[in-house]
Amino acid sequence: MNQIDINSDLGESFGAYQMGNDDEVLQFITSANIACGFHAGDPHVMKKTVLLAKENGVSIGAHPGFQDLVGFGRREMTVSPANIYDLVLYQIGALAAFCKANDVTLSHVKPHGALYNMAAVDLRIAESIAKAVHSFDSSLALYGLSGSKLIQAGKSSGLQTVSEVFADRTYQSDGTLTPRTEKNAVLYDSQDAIAQVLQIVTEGTVRCVTGETIPIHAESICVHGDNKHALLFVKELRTAVQNEGILIKAIR
Amino acid sequence: MNQIDINSDLGESFGAYQMGNDDEVLQFITSANIACGFHAGDPHVMKKTVLLAKENGVSIGAHPGFQDLVGFGRREMTVSPANIYDLVLYQIGALAAFCKANDVTLSHVKPHGALYNMAAVDLRIAESIAKAVHSFDSSLALYGLSGSKLIQAGKSSGLQTVSEVFADRTYQSDGTLTPRTEKNAVLYDSQDAIAQVLQIVTEGTVRCVTGETIPIHAESICVHGDNKHALLFVKELRTAVQNEGILIKAIR
Amino acid sequence: MNQIDINSDLGESFGAYQMGNDDEVLQFITSANIACGFHAGDPHVMKKTVLLAKENGVSIGAHPGFQDLVGFGRREMTVSPANIYDLVLYQIGALAAFCKANDVTLSHVKPHGALYNMAAVDLRIAESIAKAVHSFDSSLALYGLSGSKLIQAGKSSGLQTVSEVFADRTYQSDGTLTPRTEKNAVLYDSQDAIAQVLQIVTEGTVRCVTGETIPIHAESICVHGDNKHALLFVKELRTAVQNEGILIKAIR
Amino acid sequence: MNQIDINSDLGESFGAYQMGNDDEVLQFITSANIACGFHAGDPHVMKKTVLLAKENGVSIGAHPGFQDLVGFGRREMTVSPANIYDLVLYQIGALAAFCKANDVTLSHVKPHGALYNMAAVDLRIAESIAKAVHSFDSSLALYGLSGSKLIQAGKSSGLQTVSEVFADRTYQSDGTLTPRTEKNAVLYDSQDAIAQVLQIVTEGTVRCVTGETIPIHAESICVHGDNKHALLFVKELRTAVQNEGILIKAIR
Repeated sequence: MNQIDINSDLGESFGAYQMGNDDEVLQFITSANIACGFHAGDPHVMKKTVLLAKENGVSIGAHPGFQDLVGFGRREMTVSPANIYDLVLYQIGALAAFCKANDVTLSHVKPHGALYNMAAVDLRIAESIAKAVHSFDSSLALYGLSGSKLIQAGKSSGLQTVSEVFADRTYQSDGTLTPRTEKNAVLYDSQDAIAQVLQIVTEGTVRCVTGETIPIHAESICVHGDNKHALLFVKELRTAVQNEGILIKAIR
Repeated sequence: MNQIDINSDLGESFGAYQMGNDDEVLQFITSANIACGFHAGDPHVMKKTVLLAKENGVSIGAHPGFQDLVGFGRREMTVSPANIYDLVLYQIGALAAFCKANDVTLSHVKPHGALYNMAAVDLRIAESIAKAVHSFDSSLALYGLSGSKLIQAGKSSGLQTVSEVFADRTYQSDGTLTPRTEKNAVLYDSQDAIAQVLQIVTEGTVRCVTGETIPIHAESICVHGDNKHALLFVKELRTAVQNEGILIKAIR
Repeated sequence: MNQIDINSDLGESFGAYQMGNDDEVLQFITSANIACGFHAGDPHVMKKTVLLAKENGVSIGAHPGFQDLVGFGRREMTVSPANIYDLVLYQIGALAAFCKANDVTLSHVKPHGALYNMAAVDLRIAESIAKAVHSFDSSLALYGLSGSKLIQAGKSSGLQTVSEVFADRTYQSDGTLTPRTEKNAVLYDSQDAIAQVLQIVTEGTVRCVTGETIPIHAESICVHGDNKHALLFVKELRTAVQNEGILIKAIR
Repeated sequence: MNQIDINSDLGESFGAYQMGNDDEVLQFITSANIACGFHAGDPHVMKKTVLLAKENGVSIGAHPGFQDLVGFGRREMTVSPANIYDLVLYQIGALAAFCKANDVTLSHVKPHGALYNMAAVDLRIAESIAKAVHSFDSSLALYGLSGSKLIQAGKSSGLQTVSEVFADRTYQSDGTLTPRTEKNAVLYDSQDAIAQVLQIVTEGTVRCVTGETIPIHAESICVHGDNKHALLFVKELRTAVQNEGILIKAIR
């Protein structure tokens, strides 16, 4: 591998409620997934975040989620595949309007939270999302968990897919993330996290919680920027990746 | 005048809640204003309504309103002009996505309820709406009350405007509608309503509640289709207008 | 058995959206479960429905559901037991305020839709609901599916429970309802439904879809009143039950 | 005057969104106005905040607002007086449930934001709020702007009222607050704010923006605690008031 994208979820403030450090994290990432008003974000925040991403030359993606503001889109809901198509298409359109009005390209879509997790393992949900993305604009890229049903559905529908890995989450032997309910779900030590990322991007493998080494495909690394510590980590990660001769660069 | 558009507000169902007779009214109108999920409508209803309008060859418009579902967007809110721009742009984008996905053109925008009424008299609000429409797509038409600030703002911003009149509402001597809080706000007799429309479309004038006759410009007639009586009226109105040799035809 | 309660879900209108025939159905039931604004209903509808129930001498219950208006509370959500306690308590309090202000007693609580179904089989959810009811007022009755975890949790927490049966739904051999996704979930013939109810209330048994006869405990029958057909059925059901010498009477 | 209450608006977090420093500010106030889920707060936050207030021995009040989460209840809405009664009663009931479940008394009600401001000048709105409070529990106290229609309506309906003053806002010669849209609306210097409070509580007068001195009645001082600076100010204010021999004490 000679290049990698770094993406982060942004535009999560809502009305009087502030969340995240969008100004700062935009300096260190190459792709921004912007909340679309269902699980977070509002029309004003969306406009501001699109403008900020444009200023920073960062690729813009829609980050649609379930309509569950109080649960921040993190609670699974038994929404029918047909309705998932509808709510994803709606949210892509809403964000695309702010891109269109500001002469900037909408590049990708990445589902949020429970929708992302459900799409990773449920092919019907994954296909609904892929279909919504494709029916809006077949040139959009679809982000999903590396090795997931969402990546599979995206490829089947003819979309460009972006396989995403996580720096600070541990992997199980089947390539899925260890659920947050487990003790060893998160790599709290930033050196461990950086080592995991370097192994992924240079060797295409990851060491699972079981001790096995499995193959993993990475086109983008997902990072968080909601506190000073997280920002520092992103800076370190960038340096470590660049030191391996790998270019940090948006998919497009 | 030799042609006129007939428009109606559609797609106002929400989840398990049914409203209106969209299937039927679509047979008698030329332009549909489709709710965008803030005051009425939801992503599923929007998709269905766009498809129904397409099938019936009816022009599609976005019908953005305040985010006040329980008030059906009929309650005035002191939203800043900047935020009105944001919420109008958001809603246009959301509806446009369903048009894009179904290969049908979004033709116009008409604000709903309290937003429509406030935009009729408040130039700053009118300008925010016109700006949102223009920044999304400068070829969209903007519907507004004939003689209103919204029509003025649309023209100033270079948009095609569509001056709308009401069949069953009475007019005051300044050209505004008699508020619904007044006794004589509504023409309950369908023959009176049809006579008013015919005078408007053939002579370009309307008889006010004060008895005066004033000039009025009409490019579209707004009708309702939410009950059998309303549907019958629309049919009668069509016949009466056509008998005058006037073509019933969408703006585009 | 010599008496039975008949309950129905009411107060499901929302803002401009009408649902149900509350005026009429209240004449035929003994207990009303009133929506509390999360999945249906709004403060104005709640006030009106409490007053209507009071006028008709019908027992009043809170009918809390998930905060999912567009899904009408019918979609399962992975809400934590702690948060289920919170949202149930909130909704009971909101409805109780309209009872208090109108000098009428709040008698019971029955969860709605997906919350009801999840509480039927998941003891932790059932316990959260029972705890919320008990912590508000330990003299409230808790309605649940006959034989469910919710009835079990209610009894354990010391609440009076009301075991509910359905006239028009079929039962499986374990006493649960046949899911609506199955073909034979619903008894469409009203004579079949009445026969099932009579067997339940006179013999304490029900014939399952497998052909077996199993015991079932019934303290209340749940009916719908949202169309003319449903209302007619409720009238027929009342007559049939009364002809067996069984009194139709609220729990209190 | 020999005693004064200090109140603050709390429980304004929502889902994943944190707002305020409730833990800390509760140590310095005597009455807490807790958001009820319409403009801020959610059932979980309400439970937590009631428990925190109880632990700190702080009087608890309901803080109902307009159903406008994205606008934080700060935008005026033309809600009918009847519907204002409904939404206030609903929110009082919801908060009262958390008090009841935790064996703590609900002491007062103070409307929030735009509802508070509208009730200060519009007697019909003020009366709707007073009626809702009284119909729930006639022993509740009603907080309002000193000299406002809300205080007048509360007194007329037989409620105990609490006249509230602001430390850091300037007054106009008619006793109303200078609108925030004016330059001189806020006293940014904490010494000026403390001097204003001391004059109000010791002399019963305030110096207006016009230079005049007018009478003002104060039973409670409203403070904010959302940042370190605000907390420091509250501490200073307490000391200054106590140095005048005035007891800081809840109304009850």
